[in-house]
Amino acid sequence: MIDIEKANETAVTRMMEARPILKDVAAARDVIPGMRDILLLHAGPPITWERASGPMRGAIIGGLIFEGLAKDEKEAIGMVAAGEIDLEPCHEHESVGPMAGVTTASMKVYVLENVTHGNKAYSNLNEGYGKVLRYGAYSEEVIAKLRWMNDVMAPILADALAQSKDGLDIRALLAESLHMGDEGHNRNKAGSILFTTKLAPLIAKATNNRFVASTILKFLGDNALSVLNPVMAACKAMADAGHGVEGSTVMSIMARNGTDLGIRVSGLGDRWFTGPVGTPDGLYFSGFTAADASGDIGDSTITETAGIGAFAMASAPAIVTFVSGTPELAINTTMSMYEITTAEHKAFTIPALGFRGTPVGVDIRKVVELGVRPQINTGIAHKDAGVGQVGAGLVLPPMNVFEDALVAYAEKYLS
Amino acid sequence: MIDIEKANETAVTRMMEARPILKDVAAARDVIPGMRDILLLHAGPPITWERASGPMRGAIIGGLIFEGLAKDEKEAIGMVAAGEIDLEPCHEHESVGPMAGVTTASMKVYVLENVTHGNKAYSNLNEGYGKVLRYGAYSEEVIAKLRWMNDVMAPILADALAQSKDGLDIRALLAESLHMGDEGHNRNKAGSILFTTKLAPLIAKATNNRFVASTILKFLGDNALSVLNPVMAACKAMADAGHGVEGSTVMSIMARNGTDLGIRVSGLGDRWFTGPVGTPDGLYFSGFTAADASGDIGDSTITETAGIGAFAMASAPAIVTFVSGTPELAINTTMSMYEITTAEHKAFTIPALGFRGTPVGVDIRKVVELGVRPQINTGIAHKDAGVGQVGAGLVLPPMNVFEDALVAYAEKYLS
Repeated sequence: MIDIEKANETAVTRMMEARPILKDVAAARDVIPGMRDILLLHAGPPITWERASGPMRGAIIGGLIFEGLAKDEKEAIGMVAAGEIDLEPCHEHESVGPMAGVTTASMKVYVLENVTHGNKAYSNLNEGYGKVLRYGAYSEEVIAKLRWMNDVMAPILADALAQSKDGLDIRALLAESLHMGDEGHNRNKAGSILFTTKLAPLIAKATNNRFVASTILKFLGDNALSVLNPVMAACKAMADAGHGVEGSTVMSIMARNGTDLGIRVSGLGDRWFTGPVGTPDGLYFSGFTAADASGDIGDSTITETAGIGAFAMASAPAIVTFVSGTPELAINTTMSMYEITTAEHKAFTIPALGFRGTPVGVDIRKVVELGVRPQINTGIAHKDAGVGQVGAGLVLPPMNVFEDALVAYAEKYLS
Repeated sequence: MIDIEKANETAVTRMMEARPILKDVAAARDVIPGMRDILLLHAGPPITWERASGPMRGAIIGGLIFEGLAKDEKEAIGMVAAGEIDLEPCHEHESVGPMAGVTTASMKVYVLENVTHGNKAYSNLNEGYGKVLRYGAYSEEVIAKLRWMNDVMAPILADALAQSKDGLDIRALLAESLHMGDEGHNRNKAGSILFTTKLAPLIAKATNNRFVASTILKFLGDNALSVLNPVMAACKAMADAGHGVEGSTVMSIMARNGTDLGIRVSGLGDRWFTGPVGTPDGLYFSGFTAADASGDIGDSTITETAGIGAFAMASAPAIVTFVSGTPELAINTTMSMYEITTAEHKAFTIPALGFRGTPVGVDIRKVVELGVRPQINTGIAHKDAGVGQVGAGLVLPPMNVFEDALVAYAEKYLS
């Protein structure tokens, strides 16, 4: 007889007790399990080139050009269509990436270790705003910026982290940023300057070129999403710690590739449950409308999976100027997530709710029973490759993924 | 016939439209009007050595030693007692200083200019935690740290600001930090890292000694009060812009010297209205109790005067872990300040209150009529010189200062 409550408590306790520390920046091929030259990692559940969305296709093309595997768009498409390139989810390689999430073997990635349980997680570096690979852009300027990040910034970040004996405790940083108006997914303003401030003395010492140090400090400090990628990797490390608990109905992954949204469940092994992505409802930047929006995309929903993001929206009332809605909506979003979760987070608290812990550990049974789906805060990509972000808003996963997972659970455990 | 409402609207509009920019760091004697070698500026209304509190006495002694005017405590006390040193309020020299607020001629100060109206304001540099002059400490380590700040850090800050063509807009920084859980007086966590992050690329470039750059970045980034002094000077520049409006009953200064609290009123010229300071009610650091507390001290109540600090407490629910109370208290404090103020701030808004402007411009008529005094959030100093901060809490000004000011107003305008 399975004690589901106990299994879920085990899973969510492991998530909460995980303490992910940012320890290094290294080439993907040197650290990510299973990484190889012709492998390209992407956000969300598995996807083929044929079914890939505009931004995902653009990022795949850009990734192959960056990697030197293709010299241009045409060659890149030819290689992928000919099956010469393997496409696999970041999540299947202990990794996560925002939006398209494309990560190639040469790309430098953040290396995090959950020092409680020993598992690791990885994420690429954040490119900032404008034309960026993660939104499917692959023009020369995009590739040049990636090369600067990879060849100039990354080694200095690695040096900076090496100076810091204990690395950077991202769970602690997140706990602090939730007291500073962030929710950790779409609003990382405080987290990004905490990150920059903690690294700044180390970066200054890591190079004897003061102009390079200055440029890196400006790049990190001006980008309110600098910390998003390490935060996502931290959430991945926490969620992975809760995965694989026999009998647990706690969701341990939720991710989108622009076409499909997929979830995994702690007690259901490595099976993906997928369904069509929604289109976010939100505010659009000047000149864009809902007709420009791509389907929901990115691994960044690992934040909601780990109990922050939209789940912690009550901490971030100022976010409504970005994703639409009112401060009451922010409070209500968090409140409704308590209905479908297993615990209140021990490390992440919300001052405005009397320091109540954030709702954590989505129980797929509750989602199906109550018809309440996990809320997602997200950036909105343009549907065409390379245009970039066109807005931000709120979106829900398709209900079938939870129903399908529950059926699979019944088949596995209750038959 | 005086139109008081119109006068108050003029005063508070000037306060809100003032835009204080941090432009330079320079020696007090070179920039502060009326500064001279034997002059020592202090917080609050005028005070004599005989009536000065423990922390104020300690800071005066330390200031004279730092300045090289006295070689030790005994000589310093002798000089002051013999009348060889002039003691004058910071506020009478376009300046402000936290806690004892002691500023001497050689000390480097932040230079702010209100670019809307042209007036300037000054504040000394923040020393961080532990044994510090502003709490009345004057041991060798205190003086050594002040010398490092003055001789090493200050010139690099001046260089950094000189590189920044337009200076640093402290009103904009404050507006942002109020959306990040600060209230700007006792909680400046977000503001201080915004400050550090904005200066970091400039500091890195301002010295070819990367170890010095690193030390300065760590000093600023680790001190959650780094930005308090520029914020106070910004509030002084804003409040001064609203001072001197004929017929206005808006409070334009509120400040404490540890013995007396004094206010000035926009329409009542340079007259101080003073009364005995209260003792803050709050939370004490481990090992200290209310019996250790000094009377309320410091110019930092210029923040409440300008519409932030306790007036913006609804923005900073996490502050209650520091000053005591609940998140509801934080909301209620702001709400009650709307009852005694003239306007809702155009630049400073509170997300949790639906982006309502902070209450700004205390109307002494309303204070007396309603019996509601301006709330103050404050650090608590030990009553003895040099022990330092022992806690933080809430305190109120004595009611008589508002009553006395109202009587003076009636005599001047209504008789």
